[in-house]
Amino acid sequence: MLENLKQKVYEANLKLVEYKLVLFTWGNVSEIDRESGLVVIKPSGVDYDKMRPEDMVVMNLNGEKVEGELNPSSDTPTHLELYRRFPDIGGVAHTHSTFAVSFAQAAIDVPCYGTTHADFAYGSVPCTRDLTKAEIEGEYELNTGKVIAECFEKGGIDYNAVPAVLVHSHGPFTWGKNGLEAAKNSAILEEVSKMAYLSKMMQAQPASEDIRKKHYFRKHGAGAYYGQK
Amino acid sequence: MLENLKQKVYEANLKLVEYKLVLFTWGNVSEIDRESGLVVIKPSGVDYDKMRPEDMVVMNLNGEKVEGELNPSSDTPTHLELYRRFPDIGGVAHTHSTFAVSFAQAAIDVPCYGTTHADFAYGSVPCTRDLTKAEIEGEYELNTGKVIAECFEKGGIDYNAVPAVLVHSHGPFTWGKNGLEAAKNSAILEEVSKMAYLSKMMQAQPASEDIRKKHYFRKHGAGAYYGQK
Amino acid sequence: MLENLKQKVYEANLKLVEYKLVLFTWGNVSEIDRESGLVVIKPSGVDYDKMRPEDMVVMNLNGEKVEGELNPSSDTPTHLELYRRFPDIGGVAHTHSTFAVSFAQAAIDVPCYGTTHADFAYGSVPCTRDLTKAEIEGEYELNTGKVIAECFEKGGIDYNAVPAVLVHSHGPFTWGKNGLEAAKNSAILEEVSKMAYLSKMMQAQPASEDIRKKHYFRKHGAGAYYGQK
Amino acid sequence: MLENLKQKVYEANLKLVEYKLVLFTWGNVSEIDRESGLVVIKPSGVDYDKMRPEDMVVMNLNGEKVEGELNPSSDTPTHLELYRRFPDIGGVAHTHSTFAVSFAQAAIDVPCYGTTHADFAYGSVPCTRDLTKAEIEGEYELNTGKVIAECFEKGGIDYNAVPAVLVHSHGPFTWGKNGLEAAKNSAILEEVSKMAYLSKMMQAQPASEDIRKKHYFRKHGAGAYYGQK
Repeated sequence: MLENLKQKVYEANLKLVEYKLVLFTWGNVSEIDRESGLVVIKPSGVDYDKMRPEDMVVMNLNGEKVEGELNPSSDTPTHLELYRRFPDIGGVAHTHSTFAVSFAQAAIDVPCYGTTHADFAYGSVPCTRDLTKAEIEGEYELNTGKVIAECFEKGGIDYNAVPAVLVHSHGPFTWGKNGLEAAKNSAILEEVSKMAYLSKMMQAQPASEDIRKKHYFRKHGAGAYYGQK
Repeated sequence: MLENLKQKVYEANLKLVEYKLVLFTWGNVSEIDRESGLVVIKPSGVDYDKMRPEDMVVMNLNGEKVEGELNPSSDTPTHLELYRRFPDIGGVAHTHSTFAVSFAQAAIDVPCYGTTHADFAYGSVPCTRDLTKAEIEGEYELNTGKVIAECFEKGGIDYNAVPAVLVHSHGPFTWGKNGLEAAKNSAILEEVSKMAYLSKMMQAQPASEDIRKKHYFRKHGAGAYYGQK
Repeated sequence: MLENLKQKVYEANLKLVEYKLVLFTWGNVSEIDRESGLVVIKPSGVDYDKMRPEDMVVMNLNGEKVEGELNPSSDTPTHLELYRRFPDIGGVAHTHSTFAVSFAQAAIDVPCYGTTHADFAYGSVPCTRDLTKAEIEGEYELNTGKVIAECFEKGGIDYNAVPAVLVHSHGPFTWGKNGLEAAKNSAILEEVSKMAYLSKMMQAQPASEDIRKKHYFRKHGAGAYYGQK
Repeated sequence: MLENLKQKVYEANLKLVEYKLVLFTWGNVSEIDRESGLVVIKPSGVDYDKMRPEDMVVMNLNGEKVEGELNPSSDTPTHLELYRRFPDIGGVAHTHSTFAVSFAQAAIDVPCYGTTHADFAYGSVPCTRDLTKAEIEGEYELNTGKVIAECFEKGGIDYNAVPAVLVHSHGPFTWGKNGLEAAKNSAILEEVSKMAYLSKMMQAQPASEDIRKKHYFRKHGAGAYYGQK
């Protein structure tokens, strides 16, 4: 079932390697078929160069495996919670990319220091609170998804305008209209995080709201004029 | 029309990829035919590996599209203003390269800390003032070009001796006798910016005027003796 | 003798090059055959691209060469001491990878700042004390192994849970169930060290024990649920 | 004449590209034939991928061109002075590699923070004093060589034990028994400089003399036991 989607998810996972965002088996990308409510995701701990499209695992939004011989990514409950809580998204990616992880480890939002960031996200990429002992010892991966959603809801952040988050002490999750866009957003977040690190070391101040707004809406929304029709 | 120039501009744009200065569709290079006053520039938001020479867009200096099916780079009005204000230049490049952007985000000129910089530019690579709200909300890309030109004029900086600028909160523009040289200058600026970042972290002081002058004029102008005749 | 093991050790050594952990002839990997007590190790100072499987040197645990025309790695006595003192390990790797060496040179443990580290090791990767003048002037490489073992014993650190160490002023040694896993652990240590450097520059605090425990035991031990069966 | 040496020098120059130490036409390697006193060096400002062995230029130690259609590297007088003042060396390399240049720009010696450095050089890699205005405006490249030699003589540094220097505000020169070894030493210096930068940012202290001596003499001199006979 969903062979086309498996192929797409397989390719989006390989993009993480092409973008140099992952080491060994780290990282994972999923995509949802919103009509059926089924999610296709990378299997857990499989080498990227041995993985095949048919190894992708099909899950439903209740967290049950619908098809696949392999175990799904251990981060699957986080992906599923994001699909439940963020109804407009179609794909999710998770990496341990170096600079984004470093901000997560330092528990610092990635500030919008300039237009590279503003082209990508409207405002800081937030870092979540740390999970409680109970949240960690309970359904940890599910609770990770809940804490991400809470971070956006309590912070009044629009997940459509900020397609990325840092999980405290952990690393980034990104999303988009499909798995490929989620993977691309992981690459952009990593580059933006590297620039933010360097800027922060030179005591940069966040960009003005005027410039942030201008660049974000140059690329996104009804008035966008970047690119082709 | 201008098929040769389109080929040259196409190749100069691909150099940005070869020099590892751009991610996805970021960045753009243009070149002007000074006789006809026509400018050839990369189309907006097109993947570098799908782009063809015939996709290059021809503009006149009034900002009107003369030929091309695609939209020109959204930064085109900045390029055109640079061609109008800096009459000696033949090519312009714009990237979001990591270290140059970081200086732009920190709103710091790239100081001339040594001979690598002095071989390239005579003095600091300046960072512009930030644009006003009116400039941002008005003809933003045109105003970006105006603020660059103002930076050089008010600062008494010779654009022939400093072929690069950082736009505040944004990133670098570079120029040269043609598109290829502009692209090369983007690569040199990025390397010089990386060295400047590292030097700055170790509390370097700018190089003396004597050494800056020596190296600049060893490579540039009537008394240059670097390279072949 | 041990031709299969020589092939494996040869391939594990080449992984150091593939993982970009070594320059020129630096670095070495060994693996032990616990039944015979024989250790196969890289020859000293041989170029990776000229090295052949049959060049691997066979040593016994008394430090005597059993087979091989070339001199074994000068670090061989360190490897042998680790096999004697850490009876559960099957492979050892040594590199001068950039970020791990930098922590060793700064004589700082690599703190566990997040889950990337916790997936790999349970607690900080320790840096040994510096060797005394007598230890350096005596059997230096043997004493290096002794100081590593002392670091784990005195520090109450389980070498199975922390498969890596930094030798003071020197660099990392890693281990695992075989040579390939030891080499992989060198790559992970380098990535974790880079993240730790960046996090430290942003004043990060170590991750909580709860999250460290969760991630370590998600991947290791009887309750592990990462990967496939 | 000296066709074999031209080939060797050509290949040593290409190593600078392979080691990722140079951008565009930057950098140069030379080698001397001590019997004839002739020096073969890269031509000035020629692209590495267009350069041919027969383009190498032959100079004598008086600074006169003996053979070659192209101009020799503009840094030739520095190379020649090093051959005159350091009679044991056979090859010289000059690059603008990023981290070594950054120490030169910060006017800081590269301290010996650990064994990677000690394997390469016995003590800090010194940074010269800055040249005077008269030295810069006079025979600049020759004076650069003189200031390097002065740095070693006044500092009581053995050029055989420290095969590298940083020229103040400029960058590294390295040497060795031939051009290839000089180029390799440029690569090692760059790596050691990167480690030193990172260590310095973490407030490292230089390695003890005991460990520096041990590692240097493990690889160099009569008692060396690293590598094969």
